[in-house]
Amino acid sequence: MSKIIDENYSKIVEKLSSLKHVLITSHINPDGDNIASVVALGAGLELLGKSVTLALVSPVPHIYKFISGSERIVEFKKLDEERPCFDCAMVLDVGSLKRVGETVDLRKYTGLVLNIDHHVKTENCGDISFVDSSYSSTAEIIYNLLTDIGVKITPEIAEALYVGVMTDTGGFQFQNTTASAMKAVSELIALGASPEKISQKVYFSNRAAKIVLMGKVLSTLKFDPSGKIGWITATKEVIDECGANSDDLENVINNLTSIETIEVAILFRDLHDGKIKLSLRARNSVDVQKFALKYQGGGHKKASGMVLDATLEDAVNRVIFEFRDYIRDYVKN
Amino acid sequence: MSKIIDENYSKIVEKLSSLKHVLITSHINPDGDNIASVVALGAGLELLGKSVTLALVSPVPHIYKFISGSERIVEFKKLDEERPCFDCAMVLDVGSLKRVGETVDLRKYTGLVLNIDHHVKTENCGDISFVDSSYSSTAEIIYNLLTDIGVKITPEIAEALYVGVMTDTGGFQFQNTTASAMKAVSELIALGASPEKISQKVYFSNRAAKIVLMGKVLSTLKFDPSGKIGWITATKEVIDECGANSDDLENVINNLTSIETIEVAILFRDLHDGKIKLSLRARNSVDVQKFALKYQGGGHKKASGMVLDATLEDAVNRVIFEFRDYIRDYVKN
Repeated sequence: MSKIIDENYSKIVEKLSSLKHVLITSHINPDGDNIASVVALGAGLELLGKSVTLALVSPVPHIYKFISGSERIVEFKKLDEERPCFDCAMVLDVGSLKRVGETVDLRKYTGLVLNIDHHVKTENCGDISFVDSSYSSTAEIIYNLLTDIGVKITPEIAEALYVGVMTDTGGFQFQNTTASAMKAVSELIALGASPEKISQKVYFSNRAAKIVLMGKVLSTLKFDPSGKIGWITATKEVIDECGANSDDLENVINNLTSIETIEVAILFRDLHDGKIKLSLRARNSVDVQKFALKYQGGGHKKASGMVLDATLEDAVNRVIFEFRDYIRDYVKN
Repeated sequence: MSKIIDENYSKIVEKLSSLKHVLITSHINPDGDNIASVVALGAGLELLGKSVTLALVSPVPHIYKFISGSERIVEFKKLDEERPCFDCAMVLDVGSLKRVGETVDLRKYTGLVLNIDHHVKTENCGDISFVDSSYSSTAEIIYNLLTDIGVKITPEIAEALYVGVMTDTGGFQFQNTTASAMKAVSELIALGASPEKISQKVYFSNRAAKIVLMGKVLSTLKFDPSGKIGWITATKEVIDECGANSDDLENVINNLTSIETIEVAILFRDLHDGKIKLSLRARNSVDVQKFALKYQGGGHKKASGMVLDATLEDAVNRVIFEFRDYIRDYVKN
C-alpha cells in the first residue's frame, strides 16, 4: 500500500472497486507520461476484471508505440461513431477538460468523470479530482493507485510506468526527480522494466532526417558579443532539403541551453508565410515568457514561443537587440 | 548496514577501523565515478577522524570541479616531491595497478594496497581486493561502505556519490541501471543530492565551441544507400575554425547511434599528419572491435577506434566499402 492520504484519492479508489467499463483518456498531443499512464491504468484495471477503453484525440507518437498496449489507444473520432456508454471516464494528466480536446464532450459517454494529475491545479476538473504536484509524474501516482487497488504489476505495466516517470523528469534531470520518484523507478526495474531498452526506444530512435537537420541548423549558431544570447535559424528550404518536417526541430534548441555562457537561446523559424516563429529558452533566471508576452506569445518562464511578422533578417536583428537590453534586469555582468 | 557479504569486503572494513592516514586514488584520465568515489571516501573517512590524501595522475576534468572536495585532489608529481607515508593506499575503480599511472609505484608510499572496483576483474590488484560487477559503479559500493563503517552521509558526500552513479550508468540509460543503483540514488536525493543541479553541471556545461563544432561536423553526415552505415568527417581546419579542440568531438558520434536505421556509425578525423583516426560505434549487434582489430585498432564490441594511413577521401571510400560487406554477417536485410 502507498501512503497517499487524501479524501479525493480515497473516493477514487472506492469508486474504482465497483466500476465495470471505464474510459481512460489524457490530453491532446500526448507525451510519454500520458501514454504511459493511460496504458498502465488500463492494463491494471483489466487485471481486476474490468473492461477498459483507451482513447485520445491525437495518435500515439512514434517513439511511444513500443509500449505494450499503446496499440489499443483509439482516437475519439472512432468512439464517436460507436457512441458507447461507460461507468466513468478517467482523465489523466489534465488540468482542464478542454485539454482532452476541444471537440470532446466526455459527458456524452458517461455521468462520472474522475481526474488524476500531478500538475499545479488550474481549475476543478471532473467530478472527483486528485491532484498532487509533489509527484514527479502522473505515472508515479498511477503506480501507487494500482498497488493500492491490489493490481499485481506485470513487466509490461512496469515498463509503461517507467517511461512515464523517465520522460516527465526529462530523463531524471529535472527538479521533479525526487527521492520518491527514484524509489518508484527502482521498484519498477525490479518488477521488470529495462532502463536500457526504454532509453534506446525513447531517446535513440531518431529519424535520420532529424539528425541531418540538427547538424544544418546548429551550423547557423551565432552569439552576441557577451556570449549570453545564442541563436539558430531554420528555413523551410533547409527543412525540406533534409527530408525533415517542423516537428524534427523540437529539441535542437536544447543543445544551445547546454552551453555554459548562454542565458537565452532562440530558434528562429522562417516558414515562408511572412511570419517568423520563435522558440525561446532560458538557461538560468531570465524570464522568456514575459518577453514573449509582449508579442502575444506564451509558454513558461524558461520555455516560451512567439510569432513575428517580419523577414528572417529583421526578426533576428530586432529580437537580439531587444534581448541585449532585456537580460540586464536578470543577469549581472 | 548494507548487505554485502564478502570476505575481502569484511577485511577492508576491518582494516579501515584502525587506519590513521590513508592515500586514496583512482585511474588515469578520471571519469565521474573516479572523482566521485575518491572524494566521497575521503570525506567519509575524515568524518571518522582519519587523515586522508587524495591523489591522481591526471587533473580533475572541468565538469567535475563543482564536486565539493575535488579541489583537494593533488597530482602524484606533487606527492613525489614530499614522499609522505601512509597506512594504506585505497585504489578505487581500477582493474590493474598500472591504470593508476605507469609512473606511479604505490609501494613507495605504503605497505598496504586495498582495491575496490565494480568492473569484471582482470588481474589481482593490491593486497586485498573487493570487486563486484553487480554494482552500477564504484560510487555505489562506496555508499554501502561508508554506511557500513558508520559515516553519516552529508549532502556533499551524497552529491558526489550521485555524480558517480549517474555518470557511470550513462545518465541512467545503460544496462547497469539496476534496481539497487536506483534505490541508492533515491536515498542520496533524500540525503541532499540535487539531480537537477548535478545534471546541469555535468551535462549542460558545454563550451560554445563544442556545440558550434558539433553542428559543423553533423552537417557532414552521409549514409550508405541502405541507411545502415552513417558517417561524419572532421578536419583539423574545422576544429580550429570553431576554436575547439579534438576532445570536443568526443560525444558527437552518439547523435548518429540515435538514428533508428543505423547499425554502424563512424567518425573520420583528419588531423593532417597523413593519418586518419576513426571512431566506430555499433547501435545493435555489429562487432566493431573485430573490424578495428584488423587494422591494429582496439576498444569494445560496440565502441572501437583505429588509425589508417590515408587521405580522408581514400579512408572513407575504403572503410565504407568494407563495412557494407562486413555488416552482412550481423544484419539481416
